[in-house]
Amino acid sequence: MILRNQNSVKKIILLGILLLVLAPMNLSSQEHPNLILTKNGVEKIRKELGKVPLFDNSLNKIKQEVEIEIALGIDTPIPKDYSGGYTHERHKTNFIILQKAGVLYQILEDEKYAKYVKDMLMHYEALYKTLPLHPKTRSYARGKLFWQCLNDSNWLVYVSQAYDCIYNYLTEEERNKLETNLFRPFANHISIDSPQFYQRVHNHSTWGNAAVGMIGLVMNDQELVDRALYGIKGVNLDTNAKDDDGGFLNKNGKAGFLANIEEPFSPDGYYNEGPYYQRYAMYPFLIFAEALHNVKPELKIFDYKEGVLLKSINALLNLSDADGEFFPLNDGQKGMSYFNSALITAVDISYYFGEKNPGLLSIAKEQGEVLLDDSGLAVALGVKNGDDKPFTKKSINLSDGPNGKQGGVAILRNENIELVFKYATQGSSHGHYDKLSYSLYEKGDEIIQDYGLARFVNIEQKGGGNYLKENKTWAKQTIAHNTITQNETSHFNGKYEIGSKYHSELQFYDDTDPKIQIVSANEKNAYPGTEMQRTMALIKDDNISKPFLLDIMKISANKENQYDFPYYFMGQVIETNFDYQSPTSLNVLGANNGYQHLYVEGKGKASSENTKFSWLGNGKFYSLTMATNTGDELILTRLGANDPEFNLRRDAALMIRRKNSKNSIFVSIIESHGGYSPVTESATNSKTSIKEISVILDSENYTAIKITTTKDIVKYFIMANTNPSKEAKHKIKINDKNYSWTGSYYYK
Amino acid sequence: MILRNQNSVKKIILLGILLLVLAPMNLSSQEHPNLILTKNGVEKIRKELGKVPLFDNSLNKIKQEVEIEIALGIDTPIPKDYSGGYTHERHKTNFIILQKAGVLYQILEDEKYAKYVKDMLMHYEALYKTLPLHPKTRSYARGKLFWQCLNDSNWLVYVSQAYDCIYNYLTEEERNKLETNLFRPFANHISIDSPQFYQRVHNHSTWGNAAVGMIGLVMNDQELVDRALYGIKGVNLDTNAKDDDGGFLNKNGKAGFLANIEEPFSPDGYYNEGPYYQRYAMYPFLIFAEALHNVKPELKIFDYKEGVLLKSINALLNLSDADGEFFPLNDGQKGMSYFNSALITAVDISYYFGEKNPGLLSIAKEQGEVLLDDSGLAVALGVKNGDDKPFTKKSINLSDGPNGKQGGVAILRNENIELVFKYATQGSSHGHYDKLSYSLYEKGDEIIQDYGLARFVNIEQKGGGNYLKENKTWAKQTIAHNTITQNETSHFNGKYEIGSKYHSELQFYDDTDPKIQIVSANEKNAYPGTEMQRTMALIKDDNISKPFLLDIMKISANKENQYDFPYYFMGQVIETNFDYQSPTSLNVLGANNGYQHLYVEGKGKASSENTKFSWLGNGKFYSLTMATNTGDELILTRLGANDPEFNLRRDAALMIRRKNSKNSIFVSIIESHGGYSPVTESATNSKTSIKEISVILDSENYTAIKITTTKDIVKYFIMANTNPSKEAKHKIKINDKNYSWTGSYYYK
Repeated sequence: MILRNQNSVKKIILLGILLLVLAPMNLSSQEHPNLILTKNGVEKIRKELGKVPLFDNSLNKIKQEVEIEIALGIDTPIPKDYSGGYTHERHKTNFIILQKAGVLYQILEDEKYAKYVKDMLMHYEALYKTLPLHPKTRSYARGKLFWQCLNDSNWLVYVSQAYDCIYNYLTEEERNKLETNLFRPFANHISIDSPQFYQRVHNHSTWGNAAVGMIGLVMNDQELVDRALYGIKGVNLDTNAKDDDGGFLNKNGKAGFLANIEEPFSPDGYYNEGPYYQRYAMYPFLIFAEALHNVKPELKIFDYKEGVLLKSINALLNLSDADGEFFPLNDGQKGMSYFNSALITAVDISYYFGEKNPGLLSIAKEQGEVLLDDSGLAVALGVKNGDDKPFTKKSINLSDGPNGKQGGVAILRNENIELVFKYATQGSSHGHYDKLSYSLYEKGDEIIQDYGLARFVNIEQKGGGNYLKENKTWAKQTIAHNTITQNETSHFNGKYEIGSKYHSELQFYDDTDPKIQIVSANEKNAYPGTEMQRTMALIKDDNISKPFLLDIMKISANKENQYDFPYYFMGQVIETNFDYQSPTSLNVLGANNGYQHLYVEGKGKASSENTKFSWLGNGKFYSLTMATNTGDELILTRLGANDPEFNLRRDAALMIRRKNSKNSIFVSIIESHGGYSPVTESATNSKTSIKEISVILDSENYTAIKITTTKDIVKYFIMANTNPSKEAKHKIKINDKNYSWTGSYYYK
Repeated sequence: MILRNQNSVKKIILLGILLLVLAPMNLSSQEHPNLILTKNGVEKIRKELGKVPLFDNSLNKIKQEVEIEIALGIDTPIPKDYSGGYTHERHKTNFIILQKAGVLYQILEDEKYAKYVKDMLMHYEALYKTLPLHPKTRSYARGKLFWQCLNDSNWLVYVSQAYDCIYNYLTEEERNKLETNLFRPFANHISIDSPQFYQRVHNHSTWGNAAVGMIGLVMNDQELVDRALYGIKGVNLDTNAKDDDGGFLNKNGKAGFLANIEEPFSPDGYYNEGPYYQRYAMYPFLIFAEALHNVKPELKIFDYKEGVLLKSINALLNLSDADGEFFPLNDGQKGMSYFNSALITAVDISYYFGEKNPGLLSIAKEQGEVLLDDSGLAVALGVKNGDDKPFTKKSINLSDGPNGKQGGVAILRNENIELVFKYATQGSSHGHYDKLSYSLYEKGDEIIQDYGLARFVNIEQKGGGNYLKENKTWAKQTIAHNTITQNETSHFNGKYEIGSKYHSELQFYDDTDPKIQIVSANEKNAYPGTEMQRTMALIKDDNISKPFLLDIMKISANKENQYDFPYYFMGQVIETNFDYQSPTSLNVLGANNGYQHLYVEGKGKASSENTKFSWLGNGKFYSLTMATNTGDELILTRLGANDPEFNLRRDAALMIRRKNSKNSIFVSIIESHGGYSPVTESATNSKTSIKEISVILDSENYTAIKITTTKDIVKYFIMANTNPSKEAKHKIKINDKNYSWTGSYYYK
């Protein structure tokens, strides 16, 4: 609480300074372009034309795109469709092409581009003034060109850039016409007329703020710029109202672009909705920041909150796997990657306005495209000069929360194995009930998957491209994740209001030993009366070919519960060491909370003290070894029940079910070993190196695990549960043997 | 029958000539190496060292491999395991390294390689004379080093090359020791002692023949060479006996290498077991042929049966998709491709001994490796000189049967769409009951899949890496294929004896019009009393973005039957135009013949005259439009029932079930259109261009289809059922409109 107050004070002071800085400015004598492109910048670009391959290629690509559209002619249809439908896609293409055509006009000085932009803007001027609300009613904030204000805002963010580029090409009369009939009403509709969309801390609002701010900067309209930075004056929303996704509209009354930087980003640059939505919000954050930097350099927007915008790009790039695909935390669609155009913006801006990190140049090279502005030119020149170095991703712990005190996300990396461990906040309306869950990757392939979202973004046939009901009934539920579900009920009872109040807590994170990357966190609120502490380590032991994952989930409860603990393995079952019954008909595992979507393909009991399970995925063998009790049920599940429209994938899991347990501990190792090639048909190293794991001590203060390899080499891992600080000295005796060490854990 | 007799006469004459040629030869004064490497060849190679990158790279790669093994030391363990187990894999690695070390000795003239080969051979000499049969008993022909004679033969094919390379390095005494205690008994075990393996026409025997022949050539042993070429003298097997796979051991009494060329290859070079097994047999075919070419050039082995060995390589390469992966006909494991080392042999030999096809050089470039012999040097020089051209795969019709009169396999290619249509013989013991079945590809990705086999080749945990029982209960059954299953019973009642007697018949094949690639065939024996005629065309129509598949399956039956017609689509369901019930528990579709492996995920009735179904796979949209009757049942199935060990993939299908039908016709179009990228999140052209298809005439002589696009463009396809010759003139009136044309079909 003390920290929060201090922070509020800081913010008030900062806002005061901003207001002082802004007040005396004379906005009337602007030159154009000045928003993203600048007069000086354009001159520099023109001089380099034909000399910088990456820039020239990007220019040619865009030129081709725009030429095709010019040849097709202008179409601004009466709005009608959801995303995926014709009118939606047409208007979307239009704004993208308008922005590009504007840039081409500036760089190539060919009037045909300016004319194209002008003509299309006049079409929009004629259209917009006739438009009622968009006919589709599903959105909590309907747009006019599109079914939601969000997409209208996208339009304005792009189109304000186009307008800036041809500003001087237009007569004053033309400008007045556009500003009066199109831009100002447009900005008002997405802000004043739609406060439930605009007046919040949310990625939607960031788009709205940027849209209003950018057109405000071009039109030199201080009122719009202020509305962008600080929200609509005097508007306060009901703090209990919710949006389409079930998120609070505006719980704390904050609004505006600066609040949207302040709140969702942690000091490490982690965005509370996760990388998929950060990627989506990245463009308006950065493009408006670039515009503010150009038009209002005195704002020092890139230094705001200790430079969090640029830090967030680094965080985002680190939230991607070896192929550059973002980890699908929360409602993330798999396959989204740093090849998305928003990341071209992010990489170029981060390079140019940041510390010229040569690692970014290697990503830009992979992207094969740069922005057609100062930042893109700088990147292209860097690549041309061979300044690029590999962008090396190491283990990283990213705090969550405005002050970095609300849990976080840790990514452990050891050789080619990557673990993503989530102990963060609810993650806004896009969050899942997945406390202490994880996913595991090898070279960009999933070993243990996070399901992601249940949605086919922009595929009209699938619910208009919007969230499907299975997103709520399955994807958000705890059982859809690699963590504990207690008594077949999701964390926080699956209630957003409750989940939003809490976050997990970091116990410790330590990446100093290159052989052992480790993180530990606890969760005390997901199930009242139950405390979970999970420790995950990627350990490279010389006796085992690749780093393995050691996973210790320790549960303390005040009553007996049932714990379900699934492993969403990716691949085909190779071998098990337990017997199970296979039903001839498949029935669902449960009635609610996601269980209704799981079929039972097999059911057995752990037969020995270790349960073993191996699979083949992406040409590699994986083995899971679990220290189980003989009473543990083992359930093989298959997703897809109660899914008449085939919205869910038919993915498999192995689940341990432990009934009537109070305190309990789940310990397992997942090992990647060997591989199989269908070309050589040779299977190498197809069996696990782990013979046995056992819990030799589990007290309040210490948990000790004995690991025996198939070559009978024995290792001990001991965890200091209650005093995990780096400096703490520990000494204990287990089975007549003394162990002493300094720090959070012992491994030898 | 007449043809068969003529052919037998021809063969007898040919064999006579071969015997005459061989008789006067003096085999005693051989120089070494002379088997694969030759003295002249080696000298040429040495001169080019360091000058031909592809050759040098291949040499360096092999050098590194061999150095590692030399450093590890020699291990020739007592045989114990099935494939995948240590002793199996060790002996396998040994023979591969022996061959390579021998070659290195010849090329680099470094004695350490010769010594390594000699030492290991002496280990084997000491071991082999002590060995009983391999302890694993599953094979119909047990080896000594390996569990089956097949693998022992692999060993000898490679080791005879190594022996040839160090022949002159050894003393006569050493050679005598090896020949007396190792090679001769080894050759005898796999031939005289194992006639059920050796004395047949089968890929196993080809390995055996080559093994015996190659060691015979090195040892200059005419008796062994004769045994290789013509089989074991005086041995005749029971023509009704069967092998492990259920195939006849030796139905027609033929045996030996020449019979193994004569029988399974059609004149077009199609190998009756399909590409997966052809690839496996390719190495012994070609390496023994190369050896015969070198030692007995007078045999003109590459001209045998009108040069069928080289033709077969062209056929094999054409039986691969855009990624070079072989179509998984019969028991083919998916993923096998022309990157397999046997295909390096095939490509190099085909280039060198064939017509120096520059297309082969481009494949060699992709393979990145060449043989270390004359042929590999020629290829590497060709690549160095930039002689390579793309290997363009076009539509091709490959006849089956020794005389090319027993059906075949047609591959239609139109732009990026590939159709594989099978109307061949049973395909030996590895054949499936899949008359008139097909699979469909786009750029190497499956649109409609052929399941392939149920086996994890060489993965020990999965049934020792051998055929799984699901191969018989599922993969071979008709319902596992994209063709008609009548009354829930497989073709030929799933009986190999019956299936082996018959083959489908080509109606016509026409690839002359680049816009319309078409094939038609019929099957009269799969279900007595029922005749099926299937016509498949890949049509590129200017009104539709990509070539579409038109599929006409016409059935004439003498009684009422139930017809099941599945589509094994690959991807996730996007949209259907029919209602269906989704069960909450999944039950099996049937009790036998593969139906016991299918769950019913949905069941409905065709609601209109066209049934539509679309899916998204590999980032592309696909739509199926079927002319259905309102009585047709539509069943959505999921594989995986009665599969307790998870040996089957959980793949989906849409099945039309038509009950109580005598004559019937199934007409459908499959169209690929547009795509989806998770990076841009944009869905393009996500809906079919086909509005409707209908059968406007279906008589004995003609079948006419009307195709209407979504833009209301109408096309007619008319098929001449009874007189499909290219010259035939046709004229008919349908719905008061006259149609006239010359040839097999009309499309306009």
